Amino acid sequence: MKSIIISTGDELLTGSTLDTNTNWIASRLTELDVELICCFTVGDDRDKLLWAIKQATEKAQLVIITGGLGPTDDDLTRFVLAELANSELIEDTHSLTVIENFFRLRNRQMIERNRIQAMIPAGADALDNPVGTAPGIKISIGQATVFALPGVPSEMKRMFDLYVAKWIAQRQPAKIYRKKIHCIGIGESNLVSRLEPIVKKFPQIRFGTTAKGGVITINLAYDKLEAIDAFTSDITGELGDIVLGFDDDTLSSVIGKLLKRRKQSLVTTESCTGGLIAKTITDTAGASEYFAGGFVCYSNELKQKLLGVPEKTLIEHGTVSEQTAEAMAKGAINATNANWSIATTGIAGPTGGTKEKPVGLVYIAIANDSDLVDVQKFLFGNLGRDTVRERATIAALNFLRKYLLDN
Amino acid sequence: MKSIIISTGDELLTGSTLDTNTNWIASRLTELDVELICCFTVGDDRDKLLWAIKQATEKAQLVIITGGLGPTDDDLTRFVLAELANSELIEDTHSLTVIENFFRLRNRQMIERNRIQAMIPAGADALDNPVGTAPGIKISIGQATVFALPGVPSEMKRMFDLYVAKWIAQRQPAKIYRKKIHCIGIGESNLVSRLEPIVKKFPQIRFGTTAKGGVITINLAYDKLEAIDAFTSDITGELGDIVLGFDDDTLSSVIGKLLKRRKQSLVTTESCTGGLIAKTITDTAGASEYFAGGFVCYSNELKQKLLGVPEKTLIEHGTVSEQTAEAMAKGAINATNANWSIATTGIAGPTGGTKEKPVGLVYIAIANDSDLVDVQKFLFGNLGRDTVRERATIAALNFLRKYLLDN
Repeated sequence: MKSIIISTGDELLTGSTLDTNTNWIASRLTELDVELICCFTVGDDRDKLLWAIKQATEKAQLVIITGGLGPTDDDLTRFVLAELANSELIEDTHSLTVIENFFRLRNRQMIERNRIQAMIPAGADALDNPVGTAPGIKISIGQATVFALPGVPSEMKRMFDLYVAKWIAQRQPAKIYRKKIHCIGIGESNLVSRLEPIVKKFPQIRFGTTAKGGVITINLAYDKLEAIDAFTSDITGELGDIVLGFDDDTLSSVIGKLLKRRKQSLVTTESCTGGLIAKTITDTAGASEYFAGGFVCYSNELKQKLLGVPEKTLIEHGTVSEQTAEAMAKGAINATNANWSIATTGIAGPTGGTKEKPVGLVYIAIANDSDLVDVQKFLFGNLGRDTVRERATIAALNFLRKYLLDN
Repeated sequence: MKSIIISTGDELLTGSTLDTNTNWIASRLTELDVELICCFTVGDDRDKLLWAIKQATEKAQLVIITGGLGPTDDDLTRFVLAELANSELIEDTHSLTVIENFFRLRNRQMIERNRIQAMIPAGADALDNPVGTAPGIKISIGQATVFALPGVPSEMKRMFDLYVAKWIAQRQPAKIYRKKIHCIGIGESNLVSRLEPIVKKFPQIRFGTTAKGGVITINLAYDKLEAIDAFTSDITGELGDIVLGFDDDTLSSVIGKLLKRRKQSLVTTESCTGGLIAKTITDTAGASEYFAGGFVCYSNELKQKLLGVPEKTLIEHGTVSEQTAEAMAKGAINATNANWSIATTGIAGPTGGTKEKPVGLVYIAIANDSDLVDVQKFLFGNLGRDTVRERATIAALNFLRKYLLDN
């Protein structure tokens, strides 16, 4: 079954609203094994909406529209659907009662304008909205089944699961198994080249890669679980510790699992990353089990006071140096009872760089309570403040990950 | 001028990547007064991409494509552009040199596969990529000018500004003045109601609002600067300290300006926000002038050891309490020589909530070196870990901002 998503709303075309609905629906369709062939985004404009729905119903068997079901003049979805189905809009008495009850239960006055939300093309089904006022619409146009859902994400998600997912499940044959393998510390083209011989061994398995935030994800899909498992095992054998994890794993959650398994704790001490490493670690719920806490030592005064970095080190080698990173990492272990520490010091930019110490230079140190200290120097280039900080965070967490795997 | 955006990549259709490029480009096009008539999302599929580019070049004068310029087999944009322009792909020697240098500078081996990225349809322009390996492509197809940019957001943004924005500026007629007024601590519909009388006074000025991360932005556009200034002055008079700032101001940069003006410094001490406040403050370049540093005290042990929060307070009132927030804020001032401190303690979720202390409960305390302490209680609801942490960060920074304005 092929599907198309149409998002509507002027706010999507002016950039004032980020469309997260399409991504959410796309994920659900993937889980439900429905092929999504493309997506359209159109404004609150009759002609464009008409064009998009017409194109979609000619190309796909399932069309999902979000938005344009509200009570205001720029909500056009119901009108365009009626036009394309050659039918009249009629008032759905059940939907009207549901809308009236929605207002009554909240002690709010229903204004006349809201009545329009009970208007449905003749021959279509009204879909009850359990969390809002606008019912959805299910209608056949040509060979396609069209679901029109509200644009409010919480309403759309509930109604997708109630109506669209159920409709799909009744029509789907065999189960497809999926596996994601997340890799780190390798470029995408290099990874693909290295895996070529393995990929050739399993021509029947769908294989693709995506890159995001320094992590390359290998996506596998096939209807035989054993083949996916064999493929995965060959890949992990080839890539070793380049493999970060699988499926829902993230760099943050993998470090959490490794620390929990060792019953050890972590402290962070950040200069140029300014708290981003601590923030990334605490993105994982339950981080309090292994994350003692962190220091953001922006000033040299705090580096000395809280971490005991010697003034001599700061003067002789500078704030951004191997020696300072090392002293910060050791100092954080001494100042707390944590087992492991990560320290960063560098030049995030856009200013502050020199010929010897350019923007993008970052020293990352790892220390532990058994006197291990290791420092790495990174040159991320002048890629913009946000990017330098993100790359330094990923590099630091991956540096720690390798120690947690090894020791 | 009418425009269309085409995003490409299987990862967008499987839902594994959220498309933020389209939203960013849509915002920039709005700023540049270019009408965006619709957007297409297609996978790494020759036929679909061909269809989308053909449709777009027939409907718009400007077509922006993101993605599909990489070195792997599923990167098809260059091939489809050549096909539509009826031209051959030729190796662009300048681009090849740039790609070779990119690898040489990073001490990495350029593999043969990367050569493909220097292939450009004959008659097209290669667009240097200052932050990655894939050059962009500018090509005429029918009546349209097509810009193909990389899908990596940092590369796409730099190249949009370098090439697309410049190309648009050369073609736009009268100068339009724009003003953004950022507001905080008010809902969008409430704000619009309050401003209705002022908006009626200036019917000729384009007026719109957008909401993002707790900040409502009023966007004004008109070809007379004096009228914009008069409108702005009326709005700031009406809204007072709800106005956060203008144009490029952010909550982070505004706090920086206020602290610099006062020649004062800030320390943060975070529990539930886990470093996000420190990260947000250090998003602003030059934060070292006023940001001493921060503590992320996830464990109670560190709250006692580093901030001197009394064990009694933690036991009697709990980690998430008004008393603990207050002690953290005071403790951070004592532990450093900073003038101001912000402290957060709360339950970010998704687990850990109780009936008395539900997920979303956050206490935020402000203290200064003149013995001021103020605590506010917030109930953000069970909106998901990320949202609770973001809202708490915004609330904390706005709480501090009001003190920096007043005192």
